[in-house]
Amino acid sequence: MPKLRAHNITITLDGYATGTDQRLEAPFGDGVDGLHDWMNAAMRDLDEGRAGVGADYIERGDENVGATIMGRNMFGPVRGPWQDESWTGWWGENPPYHTDVFVHTHYPRPSVPMKGGTTFHFTDEPVETVLRRAFEAAGGKDVRLGGGPSTVQTYLRAGLLDELHLVIAPIVAGRGVRLLDNWQDAADGYRVAEQISSGTATHVRLVRR
Amino acid sequence: MPKLRAHNITITLDGYATGTDQRLEAPFGDGVDGLHDWMNAAMRDLDEGRAGVGADYIERGDENVGATIMGRNMFGPVRGPWQDESWTGWWGENPPYHTDVFVHTHYPRPSVPMKGGTTFHFTDEPVETVLRRAFEAAGGKDVRLGGGPSTVQTYLRAGLLDELHLVIAPIVAGRGVRLLDNWQDAADGYRVAEQISSGTATHVRLVRR
Repeated sequence: MPKLRAHNITITLDGYATGTDQRLEAPFGDGVDGLHDWMNAAMRDLDEGRAGVGADYIERGDENVGATIMGRNMFGPVRGPWQDESWTGWWGENPPYHTDVFVHTHYPRPSVPMKGGTTFHFTDEPVETVLRRAFEAAGGKDVRLGGGPSTVQTYLRAGLLDELHLVIAPIVAGRGVRLLDNWQDAADGYRVAEQISSGTATHVRLVRR
Repeated sequence: MPKLRAHNITITLDGYATGTDQRLEAPFGDGVDGLHDWMNAAMRDLDEGRAGVGADYIERGDENVGATIMGRNMFGPVRGPWQDESWTGWWGENPPYHTDVFVHTHYPRPSVPMKGGTTFHFTDEPVETVLRRAFEAAGGKDVRLGGGPSTVQTYLRAGLLDELHLVIAPIVAGRGVRLLDNWQDAADGYRVAEQISSGTATHVRLVRR
């Protein structure tokens, strides 16, 4: 059965996936400096052909992905109604998805085909409907769930996420948006399948029971 | 300078130090099965003379401790006024502290000397006062802060804790009492000095900047 998987979702030691005041110049907000240091180090390892715990997890995240789902905040910094349709994501003209990407938003707009096979679709449908569309688009492969944290939390709470690769960065924030929060009973449906530290972070794999 | 240190404070992956409904038969409450599996394994390692990450941290926690502070919930399951003075802790007649132990409680009672050098003192004084008394009792050694989580949180929020050895157990709880919570600005005063996983848990050392 194809799965819904989230990867590289990084939180502080005190549980925050974003800090305060997310904006164009600070996509993850303030107070979370160093949150993605592990990822930068892992990307360098990948670029230079070195093995590493982080690099290995990043590669696993890219395997067998046929479609992507993300929240509005991951797609861009614009809040409320779109002023125009000029914003087409953070990633330039050839985004690294190369699949259909379903963006949850209260303000649907026409789909945007990009170079390299990525097409952004905008939807205000319920998560169950969006997930069904994504599985159809994935054609038998898995669907990857991007962020932000509130989107991951929504799918976790609904028990729809099959696998979550979570990374704990060695920083504390004190404030922001928590990832594993307000999920009470849903927590009972998950267990930790892996927990491994590299020099730069702790990697955890949460899976459904 | 002598320090205030907390050790072996264990939380779930989603940040809970206790589950729900703490009571005599379940000192850490419900929903946190496996929270201290790492500690049981480490104690076996110590008993049998084996080296191990957990065993090493437990030994470090016991070094150079001249006095102890703990919260009422760590001392016992009794809530509200003491019915009588028969409860003298979870640990039998020779508790593993062997120092003066200051117990925060809204209901002070006479000090209780135990075998092995442990004496329990009960106080409703402010944390600053209790800490001063504990440093005096420690005679130049460090003071160790026990739990529960709300007591550790109080000292963290006040910026009085110098060092926190935190352990992340590979379980999720969904509900309970969080440790690193409601500490906003205080978080800015701490940094992660170590983050290491063993097979059974991730050990973190938080220190003051």
